[in-house]
Parts: sequence; C-alpha cells; structure tokens
Amino acid sequence: MTDFAATRAMFDVPPGVIYLDGNSLGPLPKAAAERVARTLTEEWGEMLITAWTRAGWMEMPRRIGDRIGRLIGAEPGSVVMGDTLSIKVYQALAAALELNPTRRVILSDTGNFPSDLYIADGLVQSLGRGYTLRTVAPEAVAEALDETVAVLLLTEADYRSGRLHDMAALTAKAHAVGALTVWDLAHTAGAIPVRLAQAGADFAVGCTYKYLNSGPGGPAFIYVAPRHAETARPALSGWLGHESPFAFEPEYRPGRGIERMRVGTPPIIQLAALDAALDIWDMTTIEAVRARSIELTELFIARVEAACPGLVLASPRDPAQRGSQVSFRHPEGAAVMQALIARGVIGDFRAPDILRFGFTPLFIGPEEVEAAARILGEVLAQGGWDRPAAKAPAAAT
Amino acid sequence: MTDFAATRAMFDVPPGVIYLDGNSLGPLPKAAAERVARTLTEEWGEMLITAWTRAGWMEMPRRIGDRIGRLIGAEPGSVVMGDTLSIKVYQALAAALELNPTRRVILSDTGNFPSDLYIADGLVQSLGRGYTLRTVAPEAVAEALDETVAVLLLTEADYRSGRLHDMAALTAKAHAVGALTVWDLAHTAGAIPVRLAQAGADFAVGCTYKYLNSGPGGPAFIYVAPRHAETARPALSGWLGHESPFAFEPEYRPGRGIERMRVGTPPIIQLAALDAALDIWDMTTIEAVRARSIELTELFIARVEAACPGLVLASPRDPAQRGSQVSFRHPEGAAVMQALIARGVIGDFRAPDILRFGFTPLFIGPEEVEAAARILGEVLAQGGWDRPAAKAPAAAT
Repeated sequence: MTDFAATRAMFDVPPGVIYLDGNSLGPLPKAAAERVARTLTEEWGEMLITAWTRAGWMEMPRRIGDRIGRLIGAEPGSVVMGDTLSIKVYQALAAALELNPTRRVILSDTGNFPSDLYIADGLVQSLGRGYTLRTVAPEAVAEALDETVAVLLLTEADYRSGRLHDMAALTAKAHAVGALTVWDLAHTAGAIPVRLAQAGADFAVGCTYKYLNSGPGGPAFIYVAPRHAETARPALSGWLGHESPFAFEPEYRPGRGIERMRVGTPPIIQLAALDAALDIWDMTTIEAVRARSIELTELFIARVEAACPGLVLASPRDPAQRGSQVSFRHPEGAAVMQALIARGVIGDFRAPDILRFGFTPLFIGPEEVEAAARILGEVLAQGGWDRPAAKAPAAAT
Repeated sequence: MTDFAATRAMFDVPPGVIYLDGNSLGPLPKAAAERVARTLTEEWGEMLITAWTRAGWMEMPRRIGDRIGRLIGAEPGSVVMGDTLSIKVYQALAAALELNPTRRVILSDTGNFPSDLYIADGLVQSLGRGYTLRTVAPEAVAEALDETVAVLLLTEADYRSGRLHDMAALTAKAHAVGALTVWDLAHTAGAIPVRLAQAGADFAVGCTYKYLNSGPGGPAFIYVAPRHAETARPALSGWLGHESPFAFEPEYRPGRGIERMRVGTPPIIQLAALDAALDIWDMTTIEAVRARSIELTELFIARVEAACPGLVLASPRDPAQRGSQVSFRHPEGAAVMQALIARGVIGDFRAPDILRFGFTPLFIGPEEVEAAARILGEVLAQGGWDRPAAKAPAAAT
C-alpha cells in the first residue's frame, strides 16, 4: 500500500493551489532543491573538475536511465539520459530508418505531438532520397501499416485527450509488416505502467519534467531495445557516445550498447534534480500510482459532468484507454482556464477548445479533485470565466 | 581598469587550490548558487507552470544568447542558447551544407576537437549522396580551401595547444572560394575577443562551462550570421524553433531569425546558473581579460621554462597566436599531472603527453601563476610525479 499522504509531503506545492498541470511541468520535490544545492556547493564548488569522476557525474546518464527504465518496463542498461525529447526523437528515428534500409516511409498520426512531426519532417528533408513522413488519423494507424513503412512513430498518450494507443498491438502489427517502432512516452512515463520490453518496442523516448518531476527543461531519455543496441548507428555521433571519449581518437567508434546514444556533456545540475525527484518512486510503484490515477480521473469526470453540463468530455470514457489526464471541450476554453487559474486551480488550455487536467497521485488526492470540480462548476455557473483574469500561462507540451 | 581582486571574490574556489582548469570546467560563481536556489524555490516551486511566462523562462535562450553575443562580437539577436556543443555543431553544419547545395565537402583539420569531427562524420553518413569530411593538418587549411569545399569547420583555439586559427583570414579565404564557415568557439568564448561579425563568420557554436563558468553541462550556443538567419533551414526542427510553438500546427514553419535554431524545452536550471555567471562580465571587458591573460601566460611560460628544463612548450610562443592556455609536453605527463593535483595545482592531461594549464584572469592572478610554476618545478625536480598519487580526473574537452 502506498501512503499517498507521505508522497504528497515530498513536494513543495504553494498553499491554496490545486495543481492539475503536473502533466506539463511537475512541481518541485523538496529533495530536488536540497540535492541541487549540494551538487553546486559540495560537488562543483569543492571538487571542481574532479567531480566528473569523484562525484559520479559521468555515470549519471546511464545510472538514472536505469532508474527510469524500471518505470517503463525496459531492460537494465537500455535507457540513457540526455538532450531534449525532440533531439531524442531525431536520434531514434534516424537510427531506426537505417535499420530498415530498403524502406522510405515514417508513419505517424495526426494526434501526435507536433514537435515529433516537425522533427520527422526535418529529418526526411535532410535525408532526401525519397524519405517521407505519412500521417493518418490515430484510429487509422493499424490499417495504414503496410510493407512500405520503415518506422512507426507514435506517442503513446495523446497530449490533448489522453487517449492511449495500444503499444503491444501496434508494435506487433508493425513487426508483422516489417516496420520498426519509435514510441514517445512523454505522457505515459510515470503515469501508467509502460511495458517496453514486453511489447517488443524497438525504440522509445520521453521527457522527465512532466510525471517524473525533474523541473523545467529536465533531460530526456532514449531507450533502444537490446537487440538493436549494438547495431544502431548514432546519427548524432558526439564524443560521449564514443567507445573511449577520453582517448580523443580521430575516428568515431560507437560506444557499447546504449552508451552510443549519449552525445555531449550531460546537464549535471538538471540530472541532480531528476535524481532526487526519482527517489519519491521508492515509496510506491507505477501500478499503485496507476490505480490511484484511475480513481481520481473517474471521480473528476463524474463530478464535473454533474456540475458542468456545458462541458463535453474529450478524453476516452474507458479509463483503460486513457492516460492520467482528463480533457473537456468548451468553446471559451482559454477564458475558462484563465478564470480557473485565478481561483487557484491550475490546468492548461490547448487550442482550439481543450481544457486539460493532469492527475498525478504523488501529490493530488480526492479532496483536491472534488474541490477542483466544484470550483470549475462555480466558474461556469457564475460566468466568471469571462471576467478579466490573470494572463494564461505558456506551458510545455 | 578591471579590479581582478573583485572578480576573484565572485567565485568559490576551495582554499589551497590553484585552479588552472577553468578551460575545462569553470569554478562556481557564488551568485550561481544563489540564483539557482531562487529559480528552484521562487520560480519553479512558487509559480509552477506559470513561470514560463511570469519568470521569463521562455525568453532566456535568446536573452542570454545576446549577453554572450556581446563577448564574441555577434550582432544583437544572432545568438541563441540550448542543447550541447555537439548538437549545435550538427545544427550549424547541416544548415550550412544546405546553403551551399552544389558542393559536398566539409573541410576541417586534424587538430579539431574530436567531437566536431565525429559529428561531421555522422552527418555525412546520414546525408549520403557523396557528402564527405576531409581533414588536413591545421597549417594546411588555407591551402586546402578550394572550390569543392562547401563548409569549413574549425575550432578557433586548439584544445591541446591553444594555437589560434586566424578567423578573419580563413573566413575571407573560404568566402573567396565560395565556402561557408562554421567556427567552434569552445576555447575562445570568454577567453579572447572573438569578432564574428567583423570576420564575416557564417555560423559559430560554443559551450559555456569553460571560460563562461556556467557549470557542468551548461547549455551551448549557436550563432547564425544575420544574412543567413531567414534562409537557414533547421535540420533539428523542434517545436520551440517553430514560428508559433503554442499554436500546435501540424506543419513546421521556422521561427524568425535565430529563434529557429531552438529545438526543445530549454534547461532552465542550467540557464539560471549561466545567467548569474555572466554577471561577472559586467565588471570587466573581454579586452581587459585578454590583456591580463597574456600577462599571466607569458609569466607562466617564463617561470616554468626557468624551473623545469625537462618540459617542452607545446603552445605557440607568440601570445597573439595562443589562446588563454599553456601546454607543455612531458613523456610522463599523466603521472606528473596526478602529482601536481595532489599538491593542489589542478590542470589537466591530454594524451599522449600534454600537460594543459588554463588561465582565467577572472579568478587567477600572478601570485597563483608563480606558485603553480614553482610547485611544478618541485614536482619535477623531486621526481615526486612518480609517487602514488590521487586518481587523475576525467575532464570535459
């Protein structure tokens, strides 16, 4: 049994705020502030350059990769940290395409996060030679998988609706037609039990500033299935992915396994924040978090539908098909969200009409869900959403 | 006149340490620790997602880019922060190659930092179509520039010897044969007055954890000459380089000017450390730092050559041809450096036989230079370098 009051106590959330935007930027874990301060003064300040070995900095990307690997069903030694999610999408796609060299099509869906599509488009433009990005509606992906497809690029949970793709089924279908898969776990890592190895996924990528609470601009991760790890060529062949970075050899030799997906000097301060944030996962399991998340999202939907007849559910009603977020449509969604934020309920708005609420059981409980639904009902009933309100925040994905 | 005692007081350097490795990892600016703590507790902790606008996070990459631009002779609005140096090399090279579409050769030199060569090699492998990387000796670059060369990729200061390339002359020669230039400023940004605009450089990249003291894994920067800024295509087309990232449009439209070289969510905690570190530059000028650096390196060479007849200078003797470092060769260089570090003089070793010492006037003065030379003389005279010593540190570039 997880003590969710205890996990809640690990975070600094301002009093009076109901924070339903941990799916965009998780809140500050108290330990992250302490850990970062120590990294600066006791490691950087005291050890200077020697901290790369003495404080274990150089090993952090793989050590922390393994910690995340345990949350996403990855084999030990198959995940490494670094860069941003967009860079990791590029890296995974470029490697996957070369592993399937007779084909030219990246297949994705129109519900994918735009940056994934932008990166894929940028890559196919660089590659030329007939490479193309093909997008279909999310529900048409399985049917569109045919023997022209080199790589299937999908985000497991839709960033607007929270709708989940069936990773196991789509990976099996992809493999059946000879395609490889790249899964973006931005909205599922730390939210639901991802099962990369079990699903047979080829590559996966994700970010850590959402459900993993690493802070603004926290490093991304990349997973390469062990069966590809020694053959995948890193297109972004930076020195820390070299077999022997400090030999300063003139020729690139890819490092062993997942190490080759490292690129440049890792962001130690952000990694320290992430490392501390992950300690909270020692107090629970992803299965327990998922069970609690379903309780919370079911409760929120029930309460909101009772209190706010004008809202239309934009997320799947079946919790098994939904990530850890709930979205509703409202024609004045942006203004409604501003009014809500002014009342201390922080969610976010996604154009054109989506009110998006994320539920992170590590720091959100049923009392906050009930209060948020009540306040949303009041805002809508009182028309308070069209009053001048605080400026809506920009948000990250 | 710069008060170098005052700039020295801005850093936390452990007592008893003479730190001649600021060209690998600059020491901790006291203000960086304070600023990072505030970013965590007052911005991330208190403002949560709204800090992206309320704390100005989203603008940091360009605002700080302009601060660095002033140190490297860049036009306002032509520099942006993000990612690592290796990623920025890739970005600059990919864009430069497309701007010179009828040619297929990247020219570089064998003294370039290996990661730059690795990245170039990885890029040409991805591009296929006859793209190649050609490397020549550093002194043969001018002669090797011919009308097959699409892009000249050079690091301004050699990471081992500190030997400077003549940016203005080589850029002019490159342009005369129709080639574009990508300059890596890893060892010159914050060390010497770089004059990008005056030299007519096309692209430049650099890191901030050396002479700019941003801390381990601090973000890199990229410069695009204004004449290319609206035509360069970003190969790494991430959402934050989009003209309108929060419109979540399905198609990529590159942002205006240098904004298009942004990729993913910026590393705010590392940027905060960098921002605080740059405040120290308000107390001086790059010209004053360069003048002092020449005094210090001249003094060090004179003292070491007097005290250590067994060492061979590996850096140019003419200070105008040398960056802010001095290197000597010794057949037992690794062991000598270990013994030196055990005596509190921190430099670093570069295979096969280079003892490398960096001089950052912001925190190193003549007393420390004299003491370091004296201790180096003692270590060599007493043969202390072959005693068992502290483990040599891994170091960043």
